[in-house]
Amino acid sequence: MLNPIVGIIMGSDSDLGIMRQAAEILDFFEIPYELDVVSAHRTPEKMFDYASNAHLRGIKVIIAGAGGAAHLPGMVASISPLPVIGVPIKSSNSIDGWDSVLSILQMPGGVPVATVALNGAKNAGILAAQILSTANSALTEKIFQYKNQMRQQVLDKSTGLKKIDQ
Amino acid sequence: MLNPIVGIIMGSDSDLGIMRQAAEILDFFEIPYELDVVSAHRTPEKMFDYASNAHLRGIKVIIAGAGGAAHLPGMVASISPLPVIGVPIKSSNSIDGWDSVLSILQMPGGVPVATVALNGAKNAGILAAQILSTANSALTEKIFQYKNQMRQQVLDKSTGLKKIDQ
Amino acid sequence: MLNPIVGIIMGSDSDLGIMRQAAEILDFFEIPYELDVVSAHRTPEKMFDYASNAHLRGIKVIIAGAGGAAHLPGMVASISPLPVIGVPIKSSNSIDGWDSVLSILQMPGGVPVATVALNGAKNAGILAAQILSTANSALTEKIFQYKNQMRQQVLDKSTGLKKIDQ
Amino acid sequence: MLNPIVGIIMGSDSDLGIMRQAAEILDFFEIPYELDVVSAHRTPEKMFDYASNAHLRGIKVIIAGAGGAAHLPGMVASISPLPVIGVPIKSSNSIDGWDSVLSILQMPGGVPVATVALNGAKNAGILAAQILSTANSALTEKIFQYKNQMRQQVLDKSTGLKKIDQ
Amino acid sequence: MLNPIVGIIMGSDSDLGIMRQAAEILDFFEIPYELDVVSAHRTPEKMFDYASNAHLRGIKVIIAGAGGAAHLPGMVASISPLPVIGVPIKSSNSIDGWDSVLSILQMPGGVPVATVALNGAKNAGILAAQILSTANSALTEKIFQYKNQMRQQVLDKSTGLKKIDQ
Amino acid sequence: MLNPIVGIIMGSDSDLGIMRQAAEILDFFEIPYELDVVSAHRTPEKMFDYASNAHLRGIKVIIAGAGGAAHLPGMVASISPLPVIGVPIKSSNSIDGWDSVLSILQMPGGVPVATVALNGAKNAGILAAQILSTANSALTEKIFQYKNQMRQQVLDKSTGLKKIDQ
Amino acid sequence: MLNPIVGIIMGSDSDLGIMRQAAEILDFFEIPYELDVVSAHRTPEKMFDYASNAHLRGIKVIIAGAGGAAHLPGMVASISPLPVIGVPIKSSNSIDGWDSVLSILQMPGGVPVATVALNGAKNAGILAAQILSTANSALTEKIFQYKNQMRQQVLDKSTGLKKIDQ
Amino acid sequence: MLNPIVGIIMGSDSDLGIMRQAAEILDFFEIPYELDVVSAHRTPEKMFDYASNAHLRGIKVIIAGAGGAAHLPGMVASISPLPVIGVPIKSSNSIDGWDSVLSILQMPGGVPVATVALNGAKNAGILAAQILSTANSALTEKIFQYKNQMRQQVLDKSTGLKKIDQ
Repeated sequence: MLNPIVGIIMGSDSDLGIMRQAAEILDFFEIPYELDVVSAHRTPEKMFDYASNAHLRGIKVIIAGAGGAAHLPGMVASISPLPVIGVPIKSSNSIDGWDSVLSILQMPGGVPVATVALNGAKNAGILAAQILSTANSALTEKIFQYKNQMRQQVLDKSTGLKKIDQ
Repeated sequence: MLNPIVGIIMGSDSDLGIMRQAAEILDFFEIPYELDVVSAHRTPEKMFDYASNAHLRGIKVIIAGAGGAAHLPGMVASISPLPVIGVPIKSSNSIDGWDSVLSILQMPGGVPVATVALNGAKNAGILAAQILSTANSALTEKIFQYKNQMRQQVLDKSTGLKKIDQ
Repeated sequence: MLNPIVGIIMGSDSDLGIMRQAAEILDFFEIPYELDVVSAHRTPEKMFDYASNAHLRGIKVIIAGAGGAAHLPGMVASISPLPVIGVPIKSSNSIDGWDSVLSILQMPGGVPVATVALNGAKNAGILAAQILSTANSALTEKIFQYKNQMRQQVLDKSTGLKKIDQ
Repeated sequence: MLNPIVGIIMGSDSDLGIMRQAAEILDFFEIPYELDVVSAHRTPEKMFDYASNAHLRGIKVIIAGAGGAAHLPGMVASISPLPVIGVPIKSSNSIDGWDSVLSILQMPGGVPVATVALNGAKNAGILAAQILSTANSALTEKIFQYKNQMRQQVLDKSTGLKKIDQ
Repeated sequence: MLNPIVGIIMGSDSDLGIMRQAAEILDFFEIPYELDVVSAHRTPEKMFDYASNAHLRGIKVIIAGAGGAAHLPGMVASISPLPVIGVPIKSSNSIDGWDSVLSILQMPGGVPVATVALNGAKNAGILAAQILSTANSALTEKIFQYKNQMRQQVLDKSTGLKKIDQ
Repeated sequence: MLNPIVGIIMGSDSDLGIMRQAAEILDFFEIPYELDVVSAHRTPEKMFDYASNAHLRGIKVIIAGAGGAAHLPGMVASISPLPVIGVPIKSSNSIDGWDSVLSILQMPGGVPVATVALNGAKNAGILAAQILSTANSALTEKIFQYKNQMRQQVLDKSTGLKKIDQ
Repeated sequence: MLNPIVGIIMGSDSDLGIMRQAAEILDFFEIPYELDVVSAHRTPEKMFDYASNAHLRGIKVIIAGAGGAAHLPGMVASISPLPVIGVPIKSSNSIDGWDSVLSILQMPGGVPVATVALNGAKNAGILAAQILSTANSALTEKIFQYKNQMRQQVLDKSTGLKKIDQ
Repeated sequence: MLNPIVGIIMGSDSDLGIMRQAAEILDFFEIPYELDVVSAHRTPEKMFDYASNAHLRGIKVIIAGAGGAAHLPGMVASISPLPVIGVPIKSSNSIDGWDSVLSILQMPGGVPVATVALNGAKNAGILAAQILSTANSALTEKIFQYKNQMRQQVLDKSTGLKKIDQ
């Protein structure tokens, strides 16, 4: 089994339904990853350890998902030197997802989080692949394959739509 | 000099203009306090130390102000057993203050932050006094004095307004 | 039976489903409380009486929940010297909870309300315990226990997640 | 001097710049009024007295302006039987006026506030005149005059614009 | 049968479920009313006629409900001298009701609409009664009765809640 | 002088600074237009007449700008068969322009308004030209010229930027 | 079969439920159209080709619907000389439709998109008919017929409502 | 001179004030970059060419800034295999920056844009460095240096604040 190079973490196991989509994309790209629950608010020491050590264990990119006042992505980014991708999650009691989006996106100067769309874990996985592809041309090829596949699906639907309409 | 029992911290020294209003109110109530810059994102270790030790040093209430993706109040609350009062600050590049308000207010179940109004550092100071007054009846008296003083100011303005209008 | 030291009030009995979560947390912390319906808009005299007398009856902290144009927490805070915790509630016909959040949070200088997250009654209960713990070290211990328990639950879920993933 | 039949109140004398526009319109309609500072949060007893007694003193309509978590119009409406017109005011530290608008507008079933636009004190004055005109046909005539005057001003500007454009 | 003195109109018959609540309150206050569908956008001539003639037919107050880009209340107010109460309705495809609220509330200087809460037709009915009560002391009495009834309901719920809690 | 085929109207002469940008673009495209102040709220009869007759006078497209609760574009569209382009204008006392945007954009099914960006009068002019170009190939040519000109300006700025950077 | 003169495109076949309403209106107006899936993000080359060639194939108006970060209408408008009508679609994971509305509406100066209401595909179809009617008086007649039909439906509902109420 | 490996592009030269902050950070990290104006809406062909060829010219990461309906980052991401960092810019006539934030952030599944805070070009530069550091340990060292420098600045300000307060 390969050592993971992407760390997928989430603030609560209730986020797993969304965050698994990042894992599935990484499976598609054959990128080894790890998956864990790390809560900035309920396990701050674990969060600190995770963020401090991830790069030492060979992790290259961290994907962190959280809802509400979502501090996990930003706190990990404040500690780790790695690029951190933030996934805002629309949890129950969220104010329409705005809380999660803004508390991940609006990081102060010096500590970026690469934020994707609300519930956009799939895109977080693709972005991780693109980041890794900057030093891996085989991965660039796979990204083109993925894009071609998406294009073909749309073209097929276009063909299907026209048949129905005739 | 008395040992501080309220800790006022802020994510950036640019927040001092607002946060000093909390200090001024504590001066009025003769409550000893300390004032420091502690950034969750730029000094995460110091934030961790501060939150872990404040109650050991005799601090009873923490007031934490921050702007944008404001993680300081919530992170301190995740670590410290003390009540934490959060002051959302409308910083430059803020999206009208919504980012700061939502990333302080919308904490998950288990980790409360007592949030006050945008730029409401003055109210944070009063709330700290109210919290301390729950075990200090002299302070309760002062809170009544403060309320009376506010009332009198409004009544004076009412009188002034009526004179002008005659 | 012990005299209540926390007063939990709500604007409507339809808020009880949410507000009972504050009571459950206070049960956990073994803090005696009372629970009542007090409407700023439909029983203004009772609200006035409640706010004027709570501290005389031994109440130390008031938790007030309300939805829509939620005036209960702020009005109680204008009258009582006690710390008031406001719980915005997402009622039917609310504009996504924004009305309730803003009419509780955005109090003017001089009259703070310690606002928690939308529907965050559980956190209101914890915050009340933290406020009382400032003069009660046994309660501080229980708060640490509560935090440890939360941490352990997350760590257990992390372990569970890793087993599934193997 | 005539007894006032409209009561114009505001939460703070800083609202006077806006609220005076209501008074000016009532001057135009020759409707006697009174003007006072009554703060729901800083003078709750005065607010209670004002709302309880206004109708006994011959007041027919109350216009109440307030900013931020604006509770004055709603609290007065909860106590007084009179129609209450609420004027949301965009104060400093307001979140773009949303706080004031929502805490005046979103009143629960049973306690209406007739809300006008942000800073819309002029319209509050006109609305008061319209309310009084329901039992005063001379006032209805004046309202038509006012509308005619507005129309003529627009028509004059139209004529002016066309001259410039030729 | 008495001549109607309140006109309840709505932009679409799909608004009837909400707007009927205004009618029910007027029934309670024994105020005769009429109910009609008048669309500013689909029947502009009828809207024009309605607004031009309502006061000639003895109507004293108009209640107008509409959703989305809700122009009915404001257009009627631009034509009629009567006080117009606007009820924003959260229709399907509304952007959370904001469109309806803002296009009714934010009328320009000179043309007020007395706006009530989103879906607040019940309050529109009460407000109409309050407006009419300014020249009808029997109606003022009924408004006090209504307020008493509301108060008693809350007090009963308070009693019920305390029984359950014992 | 040519008969106007585009009617530019605005709710207030204070909108002229913005709305003149539509006129300037029509000058560029050599499309004859007229410019007038027509207020839905202060001159409803004139608005009605304008909308009823514009197509009879040879007008092909109406551009209507308004701020706040902006009813002019939608009301004109409800009466006229012509395509109506709506320009939301950020007036003083607007709630950040949202009121104007939503009351123009969110028209009900059956009565479209072609809405452009906040203060987007320039784009309203271009859109009018595009609409007229559907039956005028010379105008299509001019639209391509306009696009080329825009492209060239950007390319020139790109060249300028690179020179500075060297 | 007639050559299409309106092109209806959408970013995803999941938008078809909404976008078909544009097609149905064009059927009513007997305007020939084509329907296709063209994704700015997944088939950028096809989007480019479509926008470059539509006017050469006889298309006069393009209706483009998309959700989320909706770039299709704006990108087509940047390339094609034709008037482009944009339909914001409230997709899953949308932030209440705001993302789609703002990314279609707020186009920069020089590149207009005629934006209709959220999910307003029906109005997009009517607007296309109005645009084409500027050079087709038979179509103007049909638009009047359509308006009459809408008016009659509202009048019928008014009659029905009054019968029920008697 | 080294070949650029980061491409910084912006929709308008008016964005240069903000976007230059990305360049300055890359200077600090000694990462060669290029800077250009590429407008999705005014130079769509150049945008297409840029996005199609950047990776062939050795560019590893693209930073794209744009305001309003900001399509540049998403369109470049749809065409290029490279990671694209989007910088929302608060331009004039923006609706408080929401338009730009949402049209960059809310990309559909399959096409991520790594979005940073409003006007967050500095963070875009740091994120680019972090991405490149995943295959360059010397760069990781520099990122730690940068973080240390930030930390030291905050600690110095803390010391300064305490001196003033004594």
